[in-house]
Amino acid sequence: MKLGFIGLGRMGEGMVPNLLAAGHDVTVYNRTAAKVQPLVERGAHAAAAVAGACTAGAVITMLADDAAVEAVSLGDGGIISNLGRGGLHISMSTISVALANRLTAAHAEAGLRFVCAPVVGRPDAAAAARLYILAAGAPDAVTECTPLFAAMGQHVLFMGDAPRSANLVKLATNFLIMSVIESVGEAMALVGKEGIDRRAYLEFLTNTLFDAPVYRTYGGLVVDGDFTKVGFAAPLGLKDVRLALAAGEELRVPLPLASLLRDRFLALLAMGGEALDWSAIGALAAHDSGQRGPMG
Amino acid sequence: MKLGFIGLGRMGEGMVPNLLAAGHDVTVYNRTAAKVQPLVERGAHAAAAVAGACTAGAVITMLADDAAVEAVSLGDGGIISNLGRGGLHISMSTISVALANRLTAAHAEAGLRFVCAPVVGRPDAAAAARLYILAAGAPDAVTECTPLFAAMGQHVLFMGDAPRSANLVKLATNFLIMSVIESVGEAMALVGKEGIDRRAYLEFLTNTLFDAPVYRTYGGLVVDGDFTKVGFAAPLGLKDVRLALAAGEELRVPLPLASLLRDRFLALLAMGGEALDWSAIGALAAHDSGQRGPMG
Amino acid sequence: MKLGFIGLGRMGEGMVPNLLAAGHDVTVYNRTAAKVQPLVERGAHAAAAVAGACTAGAVITMLADDAAVEAVSLGDGGIISNLGRGGLHISMSTISVALANRLTAAHAEAGLRFVCAPVVGRPDAAAAARLYILAAGAPDAVTECTPLFAAMGQHVLFMGDAPRSANLVKLATNFLIMSVIESVGEAMALVGKEGIDRRAYLEFLTNTLFDAPVYRTYGGLVVDGDFTKVGFAAPLGLKDVRLALAAGEELRVPLPLASLLRDRFLALLAMGGEALDWSAIGALAAHDSGQRGPMG
Amino acid sequence: MKLGFIGLGRMGEGMVPNLLAAGHDVTVYNRTAAKVQPLVERGAHAAAAVAGACTAGAVITMLADDAAVEAVSLGDGGIISNLGRGGLHISMSTISVALANRLTAAHAEAGLRFVCAPVVGRPDAAAAARLYILAAGAPDAVTECTPLFAAMGQHVLFMGDAPRSANLVKLATNFLIMSVIESVGEAMALVGKEGIDRRAYLEFLTNTLFDAPVYRTYGGLVVDGDFTKVGFAAPLGLKDVRLALAAGEELRVPLPLASLLRDRFLALLAMGGEALDWSAIGALAAHDSGQRGPMG
Repeated sequence: MKLGFIGLGRMGEGMVPNLLAAGHDVTVYNRTAAKVQPLVERGAHAAAAVAGACTAGAVITMLADDAAVEAVSLGDGGIISNLGRGGLHISMSTISVALANRLTAAHAEAGLRFVCAPVVGRPDAAAAARLYILAAGAPDAVTECTPLFAAMGQHVLFMGDAPRSANLVKLATNFLIMSVIESVGEAMALVGKEGIDRRAYLEFLTNTLFDAPVYRTYGGLVVDGDFTKVGFAAPLGLKDVRLALAAGEELRVPLPLASLLRDRFLALLAMGGEALDWSAIGALAAHDSGQRGPMG
Repeated sequence: MKLGFIGLGRMGEGMVPNLLAAGHDVTVYNRTAAKVQPLVERGAHAAAAVAGACTAGAVITMLADDAAVEAVSLGDGGIISNLGRGGLHISMSTISVALANRLTAAHAEAGLRFVCAPVVGRPDAAAAARLYILAAGAPDAVTECTPLFAAMGQHVLFMGDAPRSANLVKLATNFLIMSVIESVGEAMALVGKEGIDRRAYLEFLTNTLFDAPVYRTYGGLVVDGDFTKVGFAAPLGLKDVRLALAAGEELRVPLPLASLLRDRFLALLAMGGEALDWSAIGALAAHDSGQRGPMG
Repeated sequence: MKLGFIGLGRMGEGMVPNLLAAGHDVTVYNRTAAKVQPLVERGAHAAAAVAGACTAGAVITMLADDAAVEAVSLGDGGIISNLGRGGLHISMSTISVALANRLTAAHAEAGLRFVCAPVVGRPDAAAAARLYILAAGAPDAVTECTPLFAAMGQHVLFMGDAPRSANLVKLATNFLIMSVIESVGEAMALVGKEGIDRRAYLEFLTNTLFDAPVYRTYGGLVVDGDFTKVGFAAPLGLKDVRLALAAGEELRVPLPLASLLRDRFLALLAMGGEALDWSAIGALAAHDSGQRGPMG
Repeated sequence: MKLGFIGLGRMGEGMVPNLLAAGHDVTVYNRTAAKVQPLVERGAHAAAAVAGACTAGAVITMLADDAAVEAVSLGDGGIISNLGRGGLHISMSTISVALANRLTAAHAEAGLRFVCAPVVGRPDAAAAARLYILAAGAPDAVTECTPLFAAMGQHVLFMGDAPRSANLVKLATNFLIMSVIESVGEAMALVGKEGIDRRAYLEFLTNTLFDAPVYRTYGGLVVDGDFTKVGFAAPLGLKDVRLALAAGEELRVPLPLASLLRDRFLALLAMGGEALDWSAIGALAAHDSGQRGPMG
């Protein structure tokens, strides 16, 4: 399939090679051009502007936040003015439900098709084509994406006709991950202050009821206490919990645990943790109990 | 090994047959005698009083709460006055850290050995000899329990010399389970109010990052929304989170998520949920958002 | 002094007569014209558009929310394009810190002066010229407002050179009022379920340590339990706590009590409380304890 | 009136002189005898044991906590065995609702009358006979106390027939004070990080809606940031919020703000704040935002 791909950050640069390897014809665009060359060497075409990535009539965006997706989609040189009637925009970034609403309306008005397909997985999963993809939009449009999703991910879940639903589920899932970090952080603060071996306790947990990747990965980070290797930065964690709370506000769903998580991120950033991994909030319970915190 | 076993509730009545099957010589005692006969038919001896279960010099207690363990252990007819110097008391109930402290001191003063070995697992796991056992106490005493634990459980974790540590870890583990219930409850309230299929979302979760028994079991209960089949009753959930908070208070460890869980249990009980399973707190986020709550 | 006044809602329609009574020459504008006539009869001039209220070179805005203030200030027919170099815009609405920042920059760029002067007080206080005014901006500009503030309020507090600071303080003050509502709500839920006379207890409080208008007014509303007479609507309460939290997020200040209040407002709105007074959140603690809630 | 008075701590030593000054005949007892002599010099009689303070048939207790009241009331040498049929015990300490229940039952069984009359006020209010007294018990018994209360306080509120109710109201009142500390702490953290003058803001508050002693006293302590002069120690604050939460648990009333306050006290004590005034929790919001905390 012929398509454009906009956004070659840590996720996008891992996803494009998998599309190429599956035989797709990909034209890439990135704001900073340096990221383009390695992909051209692997068979991608380079576009000099957003418009150039839209000529195929289908384009994927994989960008950092609402502002970036909005800038690339709307406006004079943006996707909507360049994609051509009937074209397909697949938004794979984690964006707010509110922006998904606006983009859905804007694409419809322009006679374009819009699919949201945010992913669960870190950069290494993107590179290994092992992402989990949450897709929502008009069923025929989502079906058209099937070969693309197959090239990039290990699992696709169809979340319904409203593109925004996929983003909501993505935010709910990140909320669940943060909840694991917080709960393990509190449990470890408790047993740690008693003098119990926290690593042995984690091993017990992940060998029994809590035998899941999320406890092994994030429980391990909390027990290790080294948050300087960043898979997902703390400010992005704050952004995602803010978006989850905003979605809850729109739907009138109080989320007290999400509120607690938001306060944790703010405390972490206030302490100087901007450059830490988001799992560093898991050290705040220990900090508040007079033990070692996220800043050592 | 020759031993007594006190407490034939839903857990104890499943554990004793496994001890008998492994060749141990067990004398059972229960406050209400009706529970005794079926075990006698399977080879157990019956004791008419606590004292009778102490003659072997080793005794397991598996009782409902602090009050029951205290009553059976201390006082004139209790374990401490009947076990005989050097005897071994293995407390497998979930008790408070404070009571574990007092019992540790009382046994030491009487020249007795005391091991705490609370278990993780529901009655069906007890019957199937698939409990997880958290053991703490003097190493030689814990070692002496090895054949007993092997008969009743699938996994033993040694938590150190202080018996109370095993109870603390048990409470931390139940806190982690409740945290899963709450976080899934909030996530499902959010996606459910959006109109997304909650069961499909849970399946996605348990097929991916959250592929663990605790999400399958408790996530399933929250999504089903039927809390009338009680594996662990809501008032016991409240008791356990209260004990975790009390341990946190003693150790000066604030546990804000545990505080939230405690408030959830109180709201559940205030609404009339005394007879529901503890997982019913997972319906409160939906209730607070104007959706279906724990009482239907 | 000659000036324009934009926004004749429940607050503005009470404030303008006080300006007129003090001898000021006021040209009023309101989106819905019906509110204008009564003020013209008292001596005001009517403007047909925002521009008409800007000819005097000084204009007050008293509008519902960020969107309204933004619409009236920016854009082709807005204040900034019509006020004339050196003109003075006095924003008395409760707006976000973020919007205050943007308006400060936009006015500076256009060579205009900008003062924020949000007020504390209900419509009856506005009509009685008994508002408390929180003013911030360039000192000479604030000084120029002195006769206006004297006509409308009983007390002015100068909050510094940055206009946004006045809005921050206004949001902090509304947060403190909501905190009173919540704390009284919890205390009354507790003593009420014990069967104690809640009104007698409130009287005790307001005769002793808690002898302040905020306890008499809001404590009285919580004890009465009738929230249908709306002084300040629940959705505006949600808006203000959201703006306080957003300011906290920008400044990296976790506000856990504000987070709790936000969840209270969401639960209230989810239950159907959109049309109630914001003090209705004070009935949620009783509701969660199985007593009478905000909807009766 | 002839009566005994047990407990000459910072409160009791201020209250007894007021009873003497009003002409009452008081026999005092204190565990550490040194406190007795100054009162004897002012006209009190000294008792060598609890029994000696019971001979008049009426006795007031003013002690530190549940354990002290329990020890002095129950047991061989205690009030109940010494007061004599029909005697009157007036408990003015802040005790738990649960202990009030037990003491009510124990006194009834012994044919004694029992009144709870906890007070609101610091030691200086006790010395100045300006306490607020919350009294509950059989109406005739409370009436009998009237001249005593008149000598010690400025205001009495009758809370009903159940002695425990007075303690519940006392706990609710202390909860309200703590809520003021927390809310002011958060508001000051927010405006303080903005760079606004916190003292000027407090003055504005206490001159307007928040014109009450509780805001002047506790707001002042939070703004000053010096918590080393102890009026009421932090561990006693933790005790009182724990008792309020326990009462809420018994009555099935979730108190989320009280839960937050409990976590604040634990964090304060974990940081080493044992010797600070309870108002030091008001510095934790600032601490969590990277500003100055309770330990400087």
